Amino acid sequence: MSNIESAENLLREGERIDDLQRDGLRIIQNGEKFCFGIDAVLLSDFANVKRNEKVLDIGTGTGIIPILLYAKSEGEHFTGLEIQKASAEMAMRSVKLNNIEDKVSIIEGDIKNALNLFERESFNVITSNPPYMIDSAGIDNENDEKTIARHEVKCTLDDIIREGSKLLKVNGRFYMVHRPFRLVEIFETFRKYHLEPKTMRMVHPFINKEPNMVLIEAIKGAKPRLKTLQPLIVYKEQGKYTDEIFEIYNM
Amino acid sequence: MSNIESAENLLREGERIDDLQRDGLRIIQNGEKFCFGIDAVLLSDFANVKRNEKVLDIGTGTGIIPILLYAKSEGEHFTGLEIQKASAEMAMRSVKLNNIEDKVSIIEGDIKNALNLFERESFNVITSNPPYMIDSAGIDNENDEKTIARHEVKCTLDDIIREGSKLLKVNGRFYMVHRPFRLVEIFETFRKYHLEPKTMRMVHPFINKEPNMVLIEAIKGAKPRLKTLQPLIVYKEQGKYTDEIFEIYNM
Repeated sequence: MSNIESAENLLREGERIDDLQRDGLRIIQNGEKFCFGIDAVLLSDFANVKRNEKVLDIGTGTGIIPILLYAKSEGEHFTGLEIQKASAEMAMRSVKLNNIEDKVSIIEGDIKNALNLFERESFNVITSNPPYMIDSAGIDNENDEKTIARHEVKCTLDDIIREGSKLLKVNGRFYMVHRPFRLVEIFETFRKYHLEPKTMRMVHPFINKEPNMVLIEAIKGAKPRLKTLQPLIVYKEQGKYTDEIFEIYNM
Repeated sequence: MSNIESAENLLREGERIDDLQRDGLRIIQNGEKFCFGIDAVLLSDFANVKRNEKVLDIGTGTGIIPILLYAKSEGEHFTGLEIQKASAEMAMRSVKLNNIEDKVSIIEGDIKNALNLFERESFNVITSNPPYMIDSAGIDNENDEKTIARHEVKCTLDDIIREGSKLLKVNGRFYMVHRPFRLVEIFETFRKYHLEPKTMRMVHPFINKEPNMVLIEAIKGAKPRLKTLQPLIVYKEQGKYTDEIFEIYNM
């Protein structure tokens, strides 16, 4: 009863609470604004966080990635960085809702100020589900929250990888989900900042369709050699998830 | 009868004639040395040669790629460049065997002398199924024909792409089959020589296995944007090709 009351106190107008189907964890979202998608869930599953490691998620939005990584790993601490005040504040309330403030921190800030926010080489793992779209052509409102989440209005791929590399320890792992059409640029930018792409997995909506997402692991200071995993297929037929997606969603 | 005699005249000790199951074309191979594999067949299928175009295959070996491209396209002329004298000479005999000397030429030479062999920007399409292995560690005999076909003994990936780019017209297409573990380097090297990777297809032995080949199309002077195709699966079960592979082999 007290739990329900406190949850209601944490909600603002237009927001809802979604059950993450994992250890009783929940997340606050606003259906009118940006809700997390399958890409965040797949990235959280793909990322390998070991015992006692420190993790930073760049552009955390609702905070979904640090919360899921907290649930699935034995990492020591999970930080979500978010440039949008309203999103950061909502993610903080999700952390409170789950009573995991000792394990997950949300910080409102700009990754371009990385070294003012965090110590150099202080994270073992960095994750990012960044804006996918390059230009802001056809955008009505550059301050719209969905636009900022989807288009490179506030920061570019180069900003995220360059600053992320500064914050990552040597041999630390950078996990990213992105669109395959930018793969060449993604590889090039990782290498430019001494992060070697080591593992890649393409995500296809159906087995006979082109991939619409790619999961990448890059390791700071590693030697070149890329491992490409078997394709991850989302649907076996229209509206029916594959067994692997069911497992990832813990359903 | 005269055809059989002439075929026999073209054969040397240890060689055999294989039927390509396409327009009656045949190829001479030596089972003791390097025979063409599925990679050459898949590259020939992947490469798009248009009417009246000129094609160069770098490191042509048996000459399989120019011969298959001659069969499947309306290109004007197909040249195979081969550094190994014995392979080049055998490929020339395959061209004679098929009576296609007016359409397919085999040239013995080193791609590192590209501009002494061919005119700058004189080809519409370049293909290459290059040696996959980087170093020559564990190699007994650097002059062994199989070794030269598989390891970068005589030329590197950089040599092939750098020299190939000189020979390719602006907007010309470079098609390569390689191992996925070198994908990051392949993309980087293409870009270094103004060839933008535009299309990629991973080849998996089975749907639930990692890819063991990657097909890439790069276009000289193109804008960045990579299209990744649906995975190409070779076997549906042990020893049974998928329908797509049956179609590619024209069986």
